[in-house]
Amino acid sequence: MVSLELPSAVMAFNQKPVRAVLLDISGVLKNCVDGKDVAIKGSVDAVNRLKASGMPVRFCTNETTTTRSALVKKLQAIGFKVEEDEVFPPAPATCLILKQRGLRPHLLIHPALEPDFKGMEQKDPNCVVIGDAQESFSYQNMNAAFQTLIALDKPVLISMGQGKYYSEDNKLVLDVGAYKAALEYACGIQAEVVGKPSQAFFLSVLSSMNAKPEETVMVGDDIESDVGGAQKCGMRGVLVRTGKYRPSDEQHPKVKPDSIVDNLAQAVDILLKTK
Amino acid sequence: MVSLELPSAVMAFNQKPVRAVLLDISGVLKNCVDGKDVAIKGSVDAVNRLKASGMPVRFCTNETTTTRSALVKKLQAIGFKVEEDEVFPPAPATCLILKQRGLRPHLLIHPALEPDFKGMEQKDPNCVVIGDAQESFSYQNMNAAFQTLIALDKPVLISMGQGKYYSEDNKLVLDVGAYKAALEYACGIQAEVVGKPSQAFFLSVLSSMNAKPEETVMVGDDIESDVGGAQKCGMRGVLVRTGKYRPSDEQHPKVKPDSIVDNLAQAVDILLKTK
Repeated sequence: MVSLELPSAVMAFNQKPVRAVLLDISGVLKNCVDGKDVAIKGSVDAVNRLKASGMPVRFCTNETTTTRSALVKKLQAIGFKVEEDEVFPPAPATCLILKQRGLRPHLLIHPALEPDFKGMEQKDPNCVVIGDAQESFSYQNMNAAFQTLIALDKPVLISMGQGKYYSEDNKLVLDVGAYKAALEYACGIQAEVVGKPSQAFFLSVLSSMNAKPEETVMVGDDIESDVGGAQKCGMRGVLVRTGKYRPSDEQHPKVKPDSIVDNLAQAVDILLKTK
Repeated sequence: MVSLELPSAVMAFNQKPVRAVLLDISGVLKNCVDGKDVAIKGSVDAVNRLKASGMPVRFCTNETTTTRSALVKKLQAIGFKVEEDEVFPPAPATCLILKQRGLRPHLLIHPALEPDFKGMEQKDPNCVVIGDAQESFSYQNMNAAFQTLIALDKPVLISMGQGKYYSEDNKLVLDVGAYKAALEYACGIQAEVVGKPSQAFFLSVLSSMNAKPEETVMVGDDIESDVGGAQKCGMRGVLVRTGKYRPSDEQHPKVKPDSIVDNLAQAVDILLKTK
């Protein structure tokens, strides 16, 4: 039963049964403050309560500034009970696609992500892979990626996510999507996205827990990649008012969340009341 | 009379009278080789012949890596007879617009262009102006421009040109258009373009010589900004096979030049035969 005290906006998403949950990481579990990860108030406990309830949970992230292994260690260090096989970032999915299609990547990625691409053949590249390279998005590196693409007969650009921006140290900073747009425009091409909001990416995460989209809720702070992407897959999308959230997101011209909650703790309060 | 030896592709553009000419600068008059400007073979003489014929000529450029004054001095140093009032780059036109609309720019431009914005109020910015900033397109500078835009109620982004790329030291390098696309995507906005292919920009150059679009030919190496832009204004657009030209430009899906010539010298040969 849903408590009558909850505002109507937060009631909608659990009127149908919820049997699995996807959680975004940055801006939902934690924020980056002064270069350090800080758990968002109530989030560690919220994850514990979800897991204790027996609800299958996966962490579905577009994080590409660190390896999966390092990301999990960072989350554990600030109190989260999370294991590597529960966390789905774009890099491992990208490596799988590169191998399946015989692609040799020119990488424009964060140096800290490089170990996730170890062993991939990178000589004589026949595609470009970009992630959130941050400071490595220099003019020089962007030109090198552009020159690789423009020299190909059929340029292949794989973008690990297409986020517009995210919050870091209480400032909004550009995400990979902006640089994807730059290379697409310069080359007259369309990138392939691996990561949210790619439907194939969401479905691969759901299949890891045998969950159906219509029984799954995605909780995120990105109105387009998290909420809109999940909804396009048939999931419910819940927006949190933490991380990169901006009040104008609530009037987004295209995406209407199934619910908007103050934070993950409130989302879990509501979720567990449905059980 | 057009010589019968000329291939049919280069005959079309002078079947109607030509009474004024616009010339692009980079890739038409000169190339950049090892960091130095080098006149393209035959171009110095071609400009001299055009001027000697009495044909009004203007130099219509999206150059934003140097001031107008320095650009003219560089052209003179490699032999071109050109005066400052014949050269139309985007920066002076941008300053005029900023003053007319009471805009205070956050500048993301090449350091060498800064003198052209001297005296513009830049405190408490209410718009962003970008040019071909080259190495200054750092992640940090892009974030600063983005943060200015995203904090505005109605973000105003003015882009000095929207070129995809240009040729430098025999390599193609990203132009301002790629970074315009990045900021547009991140902010969900559309930039205003000052420079080619803006119709207002072309028309202001034409008005400086009292020329009508239908009597004017634009010669450039950018199939979209030079040729397509001129054609949209009612001018004829001639593509040269120098500068950033690529054979695939001849099969551009949207723009069909009125003529394609090997270089400016050939364009002028044909032009002067119409007189």
